[in-house]
Amino acid sequence: MPTYTAPVSDTLFLLSDVFDYAKYANAPGFSEAPVDVVEAVLTEGARFVEEVVQPLNRVGDLEGCKRNPDGSVTTPKGFKAAYKAFVDGGWVGLASDPAYGGQGLPTFLAVLFSEYANAANIAFSMYPGLTNGAAAALMTHASDELKSRYLPKMTTGEWTGTMNLTEPHCGTDLGLIKTRAAPQADGSYTITGQKIFISAGEHDLADNIVHLVLARIDGAPPGVKGISLFLVPKFLPDADGGIGERNGVVCGAIEHKMGIHGNSTAVLNYDGAKGWLVGEEHRGLHAMFVMMNGARLGVGVQGLAISEVAYQNAAAYAKDRRQGRALKGPAEPDKPADILLVHPDVRRMLLEIRAFNEAARAFMVWVALSQDEARLSPDPKTRQAAEDRLGLMTPVLKGVFTDYGFANAVKAQQVLGGHGYIAEWGMEQFVRDARIAMIYEGANGVQALDLVARKLPKDGGRAIMAFIGEVSQFLAAAKGDAALAPYLGGLQTALGHLQQASMWLSRNGLKDANNAGAASYDFMHLLGLTALGYMWARIVKAVLAKQARGESDPAIDAKLLLAKFFSERMLPETGAHLARLSAGAASVMALPAEAF
Amino acid sequence: MPTYTAPVSDTLFLLSDVFDYAKYANAPGFSEAPVDVVEAVLTEGARFVEEVVQPLNRVGDLEGCKRNPDGSVTTPKGFKAAYKAFVDGGWVGLASDPAYGGQGLPTFLAVLFSEYANAANIAFSMYPGLTNGAAAALMTHASDELKSRYLPKMTTGEWTGTMNLTEPHCGTDLGLIKTRAAPQADGSYTITGQKIFISAGEHDLADNIVHLVLARIDGAPPGVKGISLFLVPKFLPDADGGIGERNGVVCGAIEHKMGIHGNSTAVLNYDGAKGWLVGEEHRGLHAMFVMMNGARLGVGVQGLAISEVAYQNAAAYAKDRRQGRALKGPAEPDKPADILLVHPDVRRMLLEIRAFNEAARAFMVWVALSQDEARLSPDPKTRQAAEDRLGLMTPVLKGVFTDYGFANAVKAQQVLGGHGYIAEWGMEQFVRDARIAMIYEGANGVQALDLVARKLPKDGGRAIMAFIGEVSQFLAAAKGDAALAPYLGGLQTALGHLQQASMWLSRNGLKDANNAGAASYDFMHLLGLTALGYMWARIVKAVLAKQARGESDPAIDAKLLLAKFFSERMLPETGAHLARLSAGAASVMALPAEAF
Repeated sequence: MPTYTAPVSDTLFLLSDVFDYAKYANAPGFSEAPVDVVEAVLTEGARFVEEVVQPLNRVGDLEGCKRNPDGSVTTPKGFKAAYKAFVDGGWVGLASDPAYGGQGLPTFLAVLFSEYANAANIAFSMYPGLTNGAAAALMTHASDELKSRYLPKMTTGEWTGTMNLTEPHCGTDLGLIKTRAAPQADGSYTITGQKIFISAGEHDLADNIVHLVLARIDGAPPGVKGISLFLVPKFLPDADGGIGERNGVVCGAIEHKMGIHGNSTAVLNYDGAKGWLVGEEHRGLHAMFVMMNGARLGVGVQGLAISEVAYQNAAAYAKDRRQGRALKGPAEPDKPADILLVHPDVRRMLLEIRAFNEAARAFMVWVALSQDEARLSPDPKTRQAAEDRLGLMTPVLKGVFTDYGFANAVKAQQVLGGHGYIAEWGMEQFVRDARIAMIYEGANGVQALDLVARKLPKDGGRAIMAFIGEVSQFLAAAKGDAALAPYLGGLQTALGHLQQASMWLSRNGLKDANNAGAASYDFMHLLGLTALGYMWARIVKAVLAKQARGESDPAIDAKLLLAKFFSERMLPETGAHLARLSAGAASVMALPAEAF
Repeated sequence: MPTYTAPVSDTLFLLSDVFDYAKYANAPGFSEAPVDVVEAVLTEGARFVEEVVQPLNRVGDLEGCKRNPDGSVTTPKGFKAAYKAFVDGGWVGLASDPAYGGQGLPTFLAVLFSEYANAANIAFSMYPGLTNGAAAALMTHASDELKSRYLPKMTTGEWTGTMNLTEPHCGTDLGLIKTRAAPQADGSYTITGQKIFISAGEHDLADNIVHLVLARIDGAPPGVKGISLFLVPKFLPDADGGIGERNGVVCGAIEHKMGIHGNSTAVLNYDGAKGWLVGEEHRGLHAMFVMMNGARLGVGVQGLAISEVAYQNAAAYAKDRRQGRALKGPAEPDKPADILLVHPDVRRMLLEIRAFNEAARAFMVWVALSQDEARLSPDPKTRQAAEDRLGLMTPVLKGVFTDYGFANAVKAQQVLGGHGYIAEWGMEQFVRDARIAMIYEGANGVQALDLVARKLPKDGGRAIMAFIGEVSQFLAAAKGDAALAPYLGGLQTALGHLQQASMWLSRNGLKDANNAGAASYDFMHLLGLTALGYMWARIVKAVLAKQARGESDPAIDAKLLLAKFFSERMLPETGAHLARLSAGAASVMALPAEAF
């Protein structure tokens, strides 16, 4: 049975030493969360998910969610009690507005906690995760009346939320949505249609479920410009805001999925359900994007989360399992065999995972802090820079983290050999659970296209130029630093590849949009690797500073070795990305459809 | 529900046009199989697996194998009838010795057929696959008495076979085996111990199961030098060779696996079971290697097989599903959306799979022909060259094909978006089934080590030098060929990388064995990519020759585009492999065990 220990001290090191958290001490929005509060929240959050949430991971997979004949859904044994404890602990509204009962802590803290929660149990953590996403969309776009009726219950987690986009014939292409909304005399709408793949769509964890539904108002223009967003509760609130009449939305089925069995992925049938418009008519996609951007970050974090828990269990196995001998002769001749860790290729697999995890965690902290800065900084330049970074890096974090999250779960499974394929060891569940993150909230190919077609050219390329400028400055400043400089060769090369790739794209992407499309996936990974390399550089700098202050310890010193491994063994991939993308679209587009 | 069409015409093109099958017309062993016989066998085999074996793929996954309270095992519905049809059709003994009831066709034909069978249903095809492997080991090492008693039944498939290596505490490290064999007065042994992960270990498809079991004779030396191989039947044959007394081997459990649910992976408990020595005492590993080498090729083919069937279904979806618009404007403005194939990144995924599949199939044909040449050629130089190639390429075919097989199943699943994650579409089963091939028959890391530590240095590096020489010669000969030359730039570069990597290994691997270990995985993939690139070069040459003869058709011409794609988009990875492996072992070995 897998175990999990949340990496609290690593998170705190990143915050304090790498991102100089002290500098936010008096910043608006951060003042509620001095570092001791952050530490207390993360420590308590870690304990909670380790003790309450993680033990349900396997039972959730085994039992799954069951739809009963009346359309109600029963979640796996133990989920209900754990969800109640999650609500009672105030974990749902950690970063929500105190005006609606939230704890008012900065958003980044909720993001950091979500790594732990998802590592412990991704299927479970999606219930509060989606609630937060739906609440964020309401917060930004809903009328005050809707807000005051729904947000207090969603902030505590008493009621949960969902997002309803997909229909059988349309996923990415939301312009094809057929679900209809008919305006009623009282200002509400009746919603009719079918939605599929609705995570947390129906369950027994909460008294009510608040669905945010994309639908087309009768007579609306075709395509995405005719899509509106509606709030459709499972139960209509009564006059006191409590549970009233059952609304016309029913769970038609629970999908049979490869993984995340503990989450109830529902087919929802809307049959004249009562709903209220959120935001403006025909501007539903715009309103939904608030939810989607947060959700994309959240899904990226799931990739890191699974990578971390998979690593921990594979490393524990490799330290325990004895098989074969070290290549240079027995390491422990008195034992029948050496531990797996003596084998270079086993180390390679573990180090590839670990060197990703630590840099990815730094990347997550960086982007999560940017989220708060973009919203709260009094300085417009800081706000703009943070918003640029957030926009540029959201698809990267989603696409790259979830690709690595899955690949790393597969590598961790490989460390266990045959046992990795056996359900009882839990590694194959990580692989199955990790797989969805590459697909939902916009498949990773869609993230890559969002990056090259929207985020790169936006504002004349300001965001990517700022990133390249920041890394260049870091490298220039480090030139004279004899201790730091030896760690930076790989990053220098990667940055050069990124610059060439950006140049290639700006020259060839406009000329032929297929050049941008064919380059997109490699560009996303090239940017991701460079950003991870930059994170390693910043970590190394922080470690060296700690060592210079005489504060080092083995766990911190190990980071220097990991940085070296990343630079020598993982960054070289940027060259292959550059070569592939600059080959252009010709060989990608040439084969006629009938030849496939 | 997925479908499958065996790529018979592609196989025949490779045989006839790329590998000049006509040259074998009068060669010993091949004379039974002129090209029209090959075509007839493959065509009929394709029809059989498409109609009989493939339709059981999903039910096998859903139902799995059930152990009954008496220790018997029930296979999924339909497996028994299909297996009987497989036996009746003579498919088990296709390439077996006619002296024991086989059809005496060359081995390569059985390999080519096994691609189709595994694509149709990997869990099912393992039953006859393991029978062939066990029979091959008996053929080479068993006494005439054992052969005449068991081989006739195994050749037809009336009885099936297994290989019993793994025990709970040992997988790769067979020196740790604890199963005991006590010599009896009648020359037999009694076998006692527990084996796990035994594929096809207990089932209801055949009247008897012939287990080949590694065990330690009482008093044997420790380690691998004290392991012997035994034949232990489920039922002891009676005086007439029929089913006699039940032997002391019982299925203790069926493993709960990630995939290949249709195959009964058993825990087998041996409690004083009667067995007979196969080959010499304490030379069991040597005898088992015959089985293992064939099995490794077979597992490699499974990688290609799943990659092919996954591709076919993803391509069909991409031609049918309409979502979004072509980047340069609607391709079919009268339709609500364009087909997925207009999107460059969807094409990228499909082309990466397809460009692997076609070259991998060529690689498989090449190695499979080498298997027959090594055994049958009257020319000692040809035999030696074929044997060298077979030895060098077996770990590559196993490791590289199964890595791509899995990665390609994942890519194919991605093409379907959310539907890829839903069981009913069948794509996620391909992913789960493909995963085991990277693990069993020696995890891919073990293949890589076998390659660099054993196969490369063998005979002073004769095999790798022969391969490098062959590709160099091909490139040199093509220099003047204006039509062919433009396709060869990528291969030229890849070959250079391979040469540098080989040089690096011969310089640094002996100095420090960990350098070889840390380089092994990248070297395996670098050699694999170069070999696939060489296959594409030979395919292109054959296509150009066909075109020059005026024999081309669109399916054949498409290969030129795929070759170009492979060269531009897949071969550049060789540079990253070279960079990584020549970084050496230092950063891999530095982290102390307690820091993991």
